[in-house]
Order: sequence, then C-alpha cells, then structure tokens
Amino acid sequence: MNKSSARTVAVVGATGAVGAEILSILEERNFPVDRVLPLASSRSAGDTVTFRGADVTVRALDGKAFRGVDLALFSAGAGVSKEYAPVAAGAGAVVIDNSSAWRMDPQVPLIVPEVNLRAMEAHRGIIANPNCSTIQLVVALNPLHVRAGITRIVVSTYQSVSGTGKDAMDELATQCRQLLNFEDVTPAVYPHQIAFNCLPHIDDFASSGATGEETKIVNETRRILGAASLGVSATAVRVPVFVGHAESVNIETDKKLSAADARAILSTAPGVRLYDDPSRALYPLPLRVAGTDAVFVGRIREDDSIDKGLNLWVVADNLRKGAALNAVQIAEALVR
Amino acid sequence: MNKSSARTVAVVGATGAVGAEILSILEERNFPVDRVLPLASSRSAGDTVTFRGADVTVRALDGKAFRGVDLALFSAGAGVSKEYAPVAAGAGAVVIDNSSAWRMDPQVPLIVPEVNLRAMEAHRGIIANPNCSTIQLVVALNPLHVRAGITRIVVSTYQSVSGTGKDAMDELATQCRQLLNFEDVTPAVYPHQIAFNCLPHIDDFASSGATGEETKIVNETRRILGAASLGVSATAVRVPVFVGHAESVNIETDKKLSAADARAILSTAPGVRLYDDPSRALYPLPLRVAGTDAVFVGRIREDDSIDKGLNLWVVADNLRKGAALNAVQIAEALVR
Repeated sequence: MNKSSARTVAVVGATGAVGAEILSILEERNFPVDRVLPLASSRSAGDTVTFRGADVTVRALDGKAFRGVDLALFSAGAGVSKEYAPVAAGAGAVVIDNSSAWRMDPQVPLIVPEVNLRAMEAHRGIIANPNCSTIQLVVALNPLHVRAGITRIVVSTYQSVSGTGKDAMDELATQCRQLLNFEDVTPAVYPHQIAFNCLPHIDDFASSGATGEETKIVNETRRILGAASLGVSATAVRVPVFVGHAESVNIETDKKLSAADARAILSTAPGVRLYDDPSRALYPLPLRVAGTDAVFVGRIREDDSIDKGLNLWVVADNLRKGAALNAVQIAEALVR
Repeated sequence: MNKSSARTVAVVGATGAVGAEILSILEERNFPVDRVLPLASSRSAGDTVTFRGADVTVRALDGKAFRGVDLALFSAGAGVSKEYAPVAAGAGAVVIDNSSAWRMDPQVPLIVPEVNLRAMEAHRGIIANPNCSTIQLVVALNPLHVRAGITRIVVSTYQSVSGTGKDAMDELATQCRQLLNFEDVTPAVYPHQIAFNCLPHIDDFASSGATGEETKIVNETRRILGAASLGVSATAVRVPVFVGHAESVNIETDKKLSAADARAILSTAPGVRLYDDPSRALYPLPLRVAGTDAVFVGRIREDDSIDKGLNLWVVADNLRKGAALNAVQIAEALVR
C-alpha cells in the first residue's frame, strides 16, 4: 500500500451496521482517503451511502471490485471474507477484516492497537480485527496483565443486539412495541424473544457446549495477550440493549493487585476510561457508552474468594471500539 | 403455632409484588388457612386484595395486628421486619420473613427447604427467607456441593426489575414506551434509565465496592450451604427484564465432575429442572420461567480454564421460588 499519497478505500459490507460505522469514523477522524468505494451484495448495489456529505453509490462485490484499491475494510461476514479477502490482497490492497474468517490463522495478525500493534508488521496482506467482546476485554486487561500476570479470566457478557446487526435492532424495537400493545411476538432474527429477555446463546453451539462467541473470546484473548495457556472461561449472553456490550470480569493474577493498584494502572492505560465512583452511582453503562471511543472500566473490587483476585465491569460501544473504530485504528497505524 | 386446626395467616406487605404472589401461592397450593389477614402500611389500609375469590380488606400494620395470628409472612422491607417481626413472634405467631433483616442473625434459621430444612427446627419464632438470587443459586448448587464439594463460586447475575417491586416494573414499561415514542425518560426508581440498559448496581454500595446484593449472595450462600469459608465472588446486575432472574455461574469443585455427572445429579435434584439441549436452542430463559416453580438449569459445560470447573446458567422466577414460593414452602413444612 502506498503510504504517501492518494488512497482508495473499499468498505465491504458498507450498508450494514458496522459498515455504516466505518464510513462515519473514517470521516470523523479525517482518515487520509481520496475515494471511498462502498461494496455490498448485489442486492444492495445501486443504493447510496453518505461520505463527507456526498452520496456514494454502492457497487456489487465481485472479483474485479478491488482494482486500484489500497485498503479494504471488510465487514460482511466470514463467508464473504474467506472468499474475497485473498482476492483483495492479491489485487494489492491491504485487508482489515472484521469477520472471524482469519482471526486464528497464524499468518494473519490479530490486532488491537492498544495491545499488540507490533504484531501487525508481519502481515501478508490480511490483518484481522478481533471479536467485539474480545477487544474491550483485552484493552481493559492487558495493562493489568503486563503488570501482574493474569492467570485466569472468568467473564460473563451482557451483549447488545447491534452486535447481530440492523435486523436485530429492528427486532428488539418491534417486539417491545408489540408487547406494550399486547400483541403477539414472533422471533425471526433470534431463536427466542429478545425483548425483556436474556439469551445465553450467541453464535452456534459446539459439541463442547460452548457457543462460537465464547470460543472466540477464549482463543482470541489468548492470542492477543500472547498467553497461549491462559485460563479463560466465557459465558456470552444477549440482552435487550441496542448498543454497548458490558462484561462482568473476574481475574486471578500472579502478583497481588489491590483495587487501588488496578485503578492507578487503568487510569493512564491507552484506550481506557475509568468510571468508578459507586458513591455517586458512577459506573459504566451500555446506554452511556454508545457513540464513544473508549473502553470504560468500573466496579473495580478485590475478590476475596481467592488470594489475588479482582472484579471489573467493562463496557464499550461494540460497533465502534468493538468493530469499526478498532479497524480504522489499524488502518491509521498502517498509513502512519 | 397450632399445627392441627384453623389457622390465621397474616401477610405483611400484602399489596406489594411479593405479597400478591404469596396470596396467590397460598391459594393455588391449597395451604390450610382459615383466615387471611392482609396487612400493609396505613397508606394501603382499606384497600382490598383477593383471596379464594373473595375481597379481603387490607388492615394497617400496628402493634396489635398480630393478635390471634398463627403464621405471619413478612414482605415489606427490612425496616418493617426489624420492628414488627419480634412483635408478631411475641404475640405467638411464627414469622417467615422475606426481608434481609434477620438473615444473618445466628438465632434465626435461614431456610431453603430443598437444601437445609432441618435447620428450621431451631427457630425461636422467626425464620428468614433468603435473598432471591441466593435461593436459586443454592437450589442448583447444593446437589453438586454435596457430591463434589464446591470450593469456589463466581456468579454474575441478570436480575429482573420485579425484584425491586411494582414501581420498577411500571418504570421499565413506561420508559420503553417513552423511548419508542421518542420522548425523554426521567429515571425515578433506579438511578439511571433501565430500559435498554444494564445497571451493575443492586442495593447500596459498601466501602469494599460491593453492593448489598452481592454481599447477601456471598454470606447467605455460605450460611445455607453450611460452608463458612466457601469462596464466593458475586456481581449483581439489573437488566431490562420484567420477571425472572438469570445467573451465569462458574464453580470449582474438590472432586472432578464432568458435565454429564452434573446433569445426572441435577436431573433428580429437588426443585431443579434441567433444561439443557443447546442443539435445539433449549436453555432456561427468564421470560419462560415466569410463573413457574422450579429452578431451571442449563448450559452445563466443563470449564477447562481449571482442573475441576463447571459453568451453569441458572434461572428462576424471582417472585415465586426467589421469594413467595420459598416462604410458603417453609410454611408448609411448619404445618406438616
């Protein structure tokens, strides 16, 4: 990729929830781009998206779409990425892929800029953006890991429907409206009603009983923290929230960290904002983080059920830091 | 208390969410009662509640209210219980108290019938009903504890607003309606908007950084399981669900339990219903347990982050098994 001059940036999946967020973040952060090329399935081709005040026509994704593209930000699902990321890379673009397709490929760096930017240097045309739940977890935990050596993580998530996509956001709103009007609800996006409910089911189940989301959190966290044998237990739960993922996190460390130590470390950690004053009912809330960039951490407490344990409550905008923003931060590092 | 004949049962807090549930459960389980005496604050005196198809007038709670009462079921907050439970006991009634007032008093048994009914025998007029989150946790975990010796519990809760009361249920519905109509929301019952949000704040904060709810889960679980030094880490979170509490539970045991072992044990455990077939998207849901009596357990998985670990997803109706039903079960044991 040419680092110095005019740049064409393709956004694959431009009409989706994350694609829209990528376009808006490229614009708001003044990313050095001359031309944006929105790509989507043939169903959405001909639609327009807005970039810097102008309508830009969405083009159909095909094998020729990446000619002249310097950078391709993929967010259209693992199937599309599996097929087209190598095509884009072959055409000379650097791919930043937001799907799960390449994340565990040892030749593809899996990057959270605040944590392991250096690993990006080894890329061969494709760089993977981690799963939303993983990104906020490692941004919050890496500074503690570096200082005290995390030996085990037990995390339970409270994940918003925007992680599933626009359809899911519509489904939550529609179901709430129907229920408040005493109408029947018919789940479509999720296997069960999501309004006023909690679903311990994100992504498909494996024979182990874990979901794909849970396995991603375990494997990606280990990979990004460079801790292959780190113990991670994850339970992923969908909650009736539109935007913002929350995580109840319990860690065990090698060296003792007091709650005050953890607060001091996190108060200057990159990408982290401490929001931890229970006396004023201040703690991170999914509702409040929507539209913001940081990973918010609060409810930091020593866990006296073990010698060296801490509890934290970690919240971030899953569409921004959990997806689009992290991808754009990787792109910014590439062009620096 | 006279075990053989006509019985007067006072329900203190009869106009609240749990009080209403107590009346309905006494009726539906055919509890041997001749007269129900609904008591509430003077504000509600003169209102009526329904019992066995008849309107019964609510009377004001005062020092003379317990004359002739055999059994008094309290559910009107810790302040009322602190003051009036000894009055009721002094007047000859047996008190079953649903508040936190007496739960940690060593002279007051803290009872979950499926777990530690025998401890009830030592009562001196007051028996405490545990916190909702604790009841469902110990019903699910005691059978595993008996078999394999639980050494540590890490639990994160997903608690419905009915645990706060009727006002909170109204607040959730009102806020949803307002938001769907693009109106502003003003939180009243909770410090922050609960609709489409998650609040890691249930009960007051202590200087340790834990909430009252979290401390209750820790202390009551140890007391009921008879395991004073059991390690328990709890994070309590309010979610926008009307009825039904869910818990993501991670346990470490002394003896190894496979997921199959745990399923076999729980499939015959008192008060437990296994609901664990991910291949058919079957797992307990808050929405589905509302109005039912069992503690539902699913998502049972081995946790390979430790040698002997298990994850479970535990859901129950917090107004029934988490409060009113457990109290009535205690009452049934008393009259047996």
